[in-house]
Amino acid sequence: MTITLTQNDYGKSRVRLLRVSRQEGRHDIHELTLQILFEGDFETAHTKGDNSKILPTDTMKNTVYALARQYPSEALENFCSHLIEHFLTYNPQISRVRIEAQESLWNRIVLGGKPHPSAFQHGSQEKRTAALNGAREGTTIRSGIADLIVLKTTKSAFEGFLKDPYTTLKEDRDRILSTSIHADWLYESGDVEFSTLWHGIRQTLLETFAEHDSQSLQHTLYAMGEAVLQNFQHAREIRLSLPNKHFNRVDLSPFGMDNPAEVFLPTDEPHGLIEAALRRD
Amino acid sequence: MTITLTQNDYGKSRVRLLRVSRQEGRHDIHELTLQILFEGDFETAHTKGDNSKILPTDTMKNTVYALARQYPSEALENFCSHLIEHFLTYNPQISRVRIEAQESLWNRIVLGGKPHPSAFQHGSQEKRTAALNGAREGTTIRSGIADLIVLKTTKSAFEGFLKDPYTTLKEDRDRILSTSIHADWLYESGDVEFSTLWHGIRQTLLETFAEHDSQSLQHTLYAMGEAVLQNFQHAREIRLSLPNKHFNRVDLSPFGMDNPAEVFLPTDEPHGLIEAALRRD
Amino acid sequence: MTITLTQNDYGKSRVRLLRVSRQEGRHDIHELTLQILFEGDFETAHTKGDNSKILPTDTMKNTVYALARQYPSEALENFCSHLIEHFLTYNPQISRVRIEAQESLWNRIVLGGKPHPSAFQHGSQEKRTAALNGAREGTTIRSGIADLIVLKTTKSAFEGFLKDPYTTLKEDRDRILSTSIHADWLYESGDVEFSTLWHGIRQTLLETFAEHDSQSLQHTLYAMGEAVLQNFQHAREIRLSLPNKHFNRVDLSPFGMDNPAEVFLPTDEPHGLIEAALRRD
Amino acid sequence: MTITLTQNDYGKSRVRLLRVSRQEGRHDIHELTLQILFEGDFETAHTKGDNSKILPTDTMKNTVYALARQYPSEALENFCSHLIEHFLTYNPQISRVRIEAQESLWNRIVLGGKPHPSAFQHGSQEKRTAALNGAREGTTIRSGIADLIVLKTTKSAFEGFLKDPYTTLKEDRDRILSTSIHADWLYESGDVEFSTLWHGIRQTLLETFAEHDSQSLQHTLYAMGEAVLQNFQHAREIRLSLPNKHFNRVDLSPFGMDNPAEVFLPTDEPHGLIEAALRRD
Repeated sequence: MTITLTQNDYGKSRVRLLRVSRQEGRHDIHELTLQILFEGDFETAHTKGDNSKILPTDTMKNTVYALARQYPSEALENFCSHLIEHFLTYNPQISRVRIEAQESLWNRIVLGGKPHPSAFQHGSQEKRTAALNGAREGTTIRSGIADLIVLKTTKSAFEGFLKDPYTTLKEDRDRILSTSIHADWLYESGDVEFSTLWHGIRQTLLETFAEHDSQSLQHTLYAMGEAVLQNFQHAREIRLSLPNKHFNRVDLSPFGMDNPAEVFLPTDEPHGLIEAALRRD
Repeated sequence: MTITLTQNDYGKSRVRLLRVSRQEGRHDIHELTLQILFEGDFETAHTKGDNSKILPTDTMKNTVYALARQYPSEALENFCSHLIEHFLTYNPQISRVRIEAQESLWNRIVLGGKPHPSAFQHGSQEKRTAALNGAREGTTIRSGIADLIVLKTTKSAFEGFLKDPYTTLKEDRDRILSTSIHADWLYESGDVEFSTLWHGIRQTLLETFAEHDSQSLQHTLYAMGEAVLQNFQHAREIRLSLPNKHFNRVDLSPFGMDNPAEVFLPTDEPHGLIEAALRRD
Repeated sequence: MTITLTQNDYGKSRVRLLRVSRQEGRHDIHELTLQILFEGDFETAHTKGDNSKILPTDTMKNTVYALARQYPSEALENFCSHLIEHFLTYNPQISRVRIEAQESLWNRIVLGGKPHPSAFQHGSQEKRTAALNGAREGTTIRSGIADLIVLKTTKSAFEGFLKDPYTTLKEDRDRILSTSIHADWLYESGDVEFSTLWHGIRQTLLETFAEHDSQSLQHTLYAMGEAVLQNFQHAREIRLSLPNKHFNRVDLSPFGMDNPAEVFLPTDEPHGLIEAALRRD
Repeated sequence: MTITLTQNDYGKSRVRLLRVSRQEGRHDIHELTLQILFEGDFETAHTKGDNSKILPTDTMKNTVYALARQYPSEALENFCSHLIEHFLTYNPQISRVRIEAQESLWNRIVLGGKPHPSAFQHGSQEKRTAALNGAREGTTIRSGIADLIVLKTTKSAFEGFLKDPYTTLKEDRDRILSTSIHADWLYESGDVEFSTLWHGIRQTLLETFAEHDSQSLQHTLYAMGEAVLQNFQHAREIRLSLPNKHFNRVDLSPFGMDNPAEVFLPTDEPHGLIEAALRRD
C-alpha cells in the first residue's frame, strides 16, 4: 500500500491588529483579523518530521505587524497584497499564499452633530472581507461582505411552490423577508480603488434588497447579484449565500385574536439557505 | 435536621418577539427578548410536587404575544409594565414579577439619502435594556444599555499607580482606551418619557467617554455616571460595569522598528473590569 | 446636589492558566479561569484620577502565575484562598477580595484499556466552580458546578398546573426532562477536602436527577438540593438554577403518523428557568 | 452583457432532532443537526420568480421528522442515505442532494457503577459528522469527527525550523501539544458498519496523537492519517484540519522564578492551522 499526501497547507489564523493612523486633528482606525496559509514543498515535514522548510506560523504573525508598520494604512486588499508579495519573495519553498482577512467596522461618535476626530463606537457585526490567492503566476482577489443583516416588512411573497405529502407551509403574499448578506466578488484585476468599489457594491446590494418585489429569496438573490454585475464592470463574478432568517407570524387565534402582521416570532433555527454564483460573460 | 426553602422563583427566558407597526408610508420594527420570573407561594410545588399554583412558563410566553397584540407598540419599559400589571392582577398566588428585557437595534436602510420606510439593517450588538421589579406595593424600573463598544485613541493615561514585586506594567501617558458600556439607571418614577430619556442618557455617556481627559477607567466611569446624574433628574442612581478592553502596543523592536502608537494587538482576555454605582442624595 | 459613590470594585477577568504537575510516570493538568475583584479605598481614583492606591489589574494577573509556581497544584478552592491571603496581606488599601474561578475538565485518553499518563481529551462544557469572598474578618467559600447538561427519557410529568385564558400547554404524564445544572453550595468552613466533596455532591445531584419521580422541574430541583444537604454536612446552603431545556414531541399527524415519544425537537429558546435556595437550619 | 447563473443550490440548515428508541429496560438517544441542500433545475426561480420547481425548505425539515418516524434509529450515515433516496425519488427537478449532519454525544449517567437505562449527561463538544453527496449516479459518503480537543504534555518538539528576520520563536524540545481534531474520511462504499468504523477510527486517531513522538503538528497529523489508512481498508482518503492551540510557558523571570514547564497560558488566538489530505493509492 502506498499513501500519498494529496494536499497540504499550514499557517496562522486569527491574527488580530488595530491600525491607528494619526493625522493632525483626525485619527483613523482599522481593526483587522487575518488568516494566512502557505502551500508549498512541505512533504518532508509531514513524512519525516523535517522542519527545515517550515517558516513558523509565529513568524507569519510577526510579519503582519512589521509590514503594518512599514506600509501606510490602506485598503484591506492592498495590505494583503503586500503580505503575499513579501512571503512569495522571501520564501522560495512556497508556491502559494492564501489570505483571508476581515475588517470590523467602527463609526465615529457624533458630538454636537459632528463626527469626533478620535472617539469611535463599534459598528454592527457586519465585516468587510477579502480573500486573496497568491501564486507565482499571479494573484486573484475577492472582496466581500459578511454578516450584514437586513429585513424588510413589505414586497416579499412566497407562492406557487411545489407541494408534496410532507408540505404544510402556507402560501404567503406578504411576509417578512430577512437575511444575513454573505457576498463576495472576483475582481478582474488588482488595480482598482477597492474601498470605493466596496462601498458602492454594498450600497447596490442594500438598495436592491430593499426595493425588489420579491417572489422568493432566490429571486431577490439573483436581482442583487445582477445589479452588482450590471453596475460594476470591475466585478467579473459574484457569489451570494443568503440564510432565510424566518420571522413567523404568531398564531393568536387560540386567544380569540387576529394578527394583522404585527406580532412575529424571530427564529435562529432551522433556517433556509439560498446560494448562487453569477458571472458576466 | 430541618431544610428550609429560603428563596425560589421560576419563569421563562429568551422569549423573542418582533413587533411591526404599520402606518401609511412608514413601518416601525422593534425586536425584543424578555425574561419573566415569578416569586410567590410555590413551596408545595417544590416539596410535594403540587402544581396547582404553577402557571406554566409556556403561558407566560403566550401572554407576551397576546399583550403585544393588545397594546400598541410603545417603549420597552411601558410594555413590561403592562405585563407586570397583567400577571399581578390575574395571579393572586404571586407576590412579585421580575422582567428583564432587551431590544436589539435596527436602522433604516438609506436609499438616495433617504431612510427607507420598510427596509432595515441590523445595528450593532448594543442593546437597550430594561429591568422591572414589580410587587404589589409598587414597581421599580431600571433602564440601561449593554454591549455598547467604544474606543478612543487620545486623552487616556494610566500613571502613578501602586507597584508591588509582581508589577511589570509600564506607566502610559497616551494609551488606547476601549470598553463595552454596560450601564443601568433607576428611575424615580414610572411616569417619564422612557425613550427620550434613554437616547439622552446614551448620548451623554458617549460624549463623556469621548471628551474626558482620562487618568484611568475608574476616572472616566465616574465622570460618565456623574454627567448622567447631573443632567437627568429622573435618574436617581446609575450603575456602570466597564471591561477594560486592552489594545496593547506591539513591540516591534526585535525587528529594529519603533511603533509610534500605530500598530496594536486587540485582546479579549484577560481584561480589566471596573464597576461602580453612583447615587444622587 | 451631592453625588455619592455607593459601591465600587475593580479587577481582572478571564485570567487563564494551565497547571501541569509532573510526577514520575504520571502528569496531571488543571485548566483554570479566574476573575479577581478588589473592594477598598478607591474613591479618589474615581473622583480625582488619583491612582496611588490602584494596584494594576495586570499585577493581579501576574500574581496568579507567580503563586501558581509557588504552591503545588491543589484544589481550586485552596488556590483561590492563597490568592486572597496574598492580596489582603500586601494591600492595606483593600477591604475585600472576591474571586470567581472555574476549572475546565480534562480526561485521560484511554489506550488499550489504560488511562494514558500524559495525553488528555477535553471533557464536556461542564465546569467546576468556586466563588470566594475574602474580607479581613474571614472568607466564605462556595463551590459549584456549571453547565452540566443532563436529560432523562422517563419519570417526568407535568400535570395539574394552573390554567388561565392564555394557557395552551397540554398536561403531560411522560415527557423528556432536560436541564443544565448550575449549582453552588456554601461550606461551613474552609477546612474540608474540597475535591472529594465536590465529586460526592456532583454524583448526588446526578443520581437524584436520574432517579427522581418528577412532577415538575421545581419538584426535582428540591429533591436534588435536599439530597445534598442531607448527605453532606459540610454544605450549609445550596442554590440551584435550572433551565428547562424543552424537547417538544414533533406533531406528525399532518402526515398521518403517530409519534410514540420517539421524535423530538430540541430547542434553545424560549426556555423555562427554575431557581431556588435550600438551607439547613 | 450576458449574466449567467453558474451555480446555485438551496435548502435547510440547523434542522434539529432528538431520536429516542425505547427498548424494554433501556432507552437510547441520538441528537442530530442536519443541513440539506438541493441542486437542480431552479434557474427560473432566480431569473423569473417562478417557484413551481421549488419544494419549500420547510418541507425538507418535515421530511426529516417523517422519515425519522418511519425508519428505526440507525447510524447517522444510514439515516442521511434514506433522506437522499427519498428526495431523489420524489423530486425529478433535482439532480443532487447534499447533506451535512452532526451528532452530539450523550453518555449514560453512572449510578452505583452501572450505566443508567434512561438518564444521560451531555458529552464534550466533540461531534460525529457525516457529509453525503447524492446524485442520480451514486452517493459519496464522508464520515468524520469535529471539535475533539486533545492535549499532551510530553513527546512534542518543534526545532530546526526555517528562520527569517521576523522570526523570534525559540526552538522547543518539550512543549505542550494541543489541537482540536477535525477529520473526515471517504468510504469506498456505503455498505459498511458505519458506527463500528467510526469508533475504531476515532480510537486510532486518539492513540496516534497520544503516542507519536512529534517533531511538529504536521508530523503528527501525517502519522494520524497514515494510521487510519493503514488500519481501515474501507477508508480511501482522509482529510485532517488541526489548529495548533498554543499553550505558552509563562515567563516568571521578572519575579525571580524559573518555570519548569508547570505554568502555561492557554490562548485561543492567534492559532496555527495545519491541514492535509492523505490517500491510499
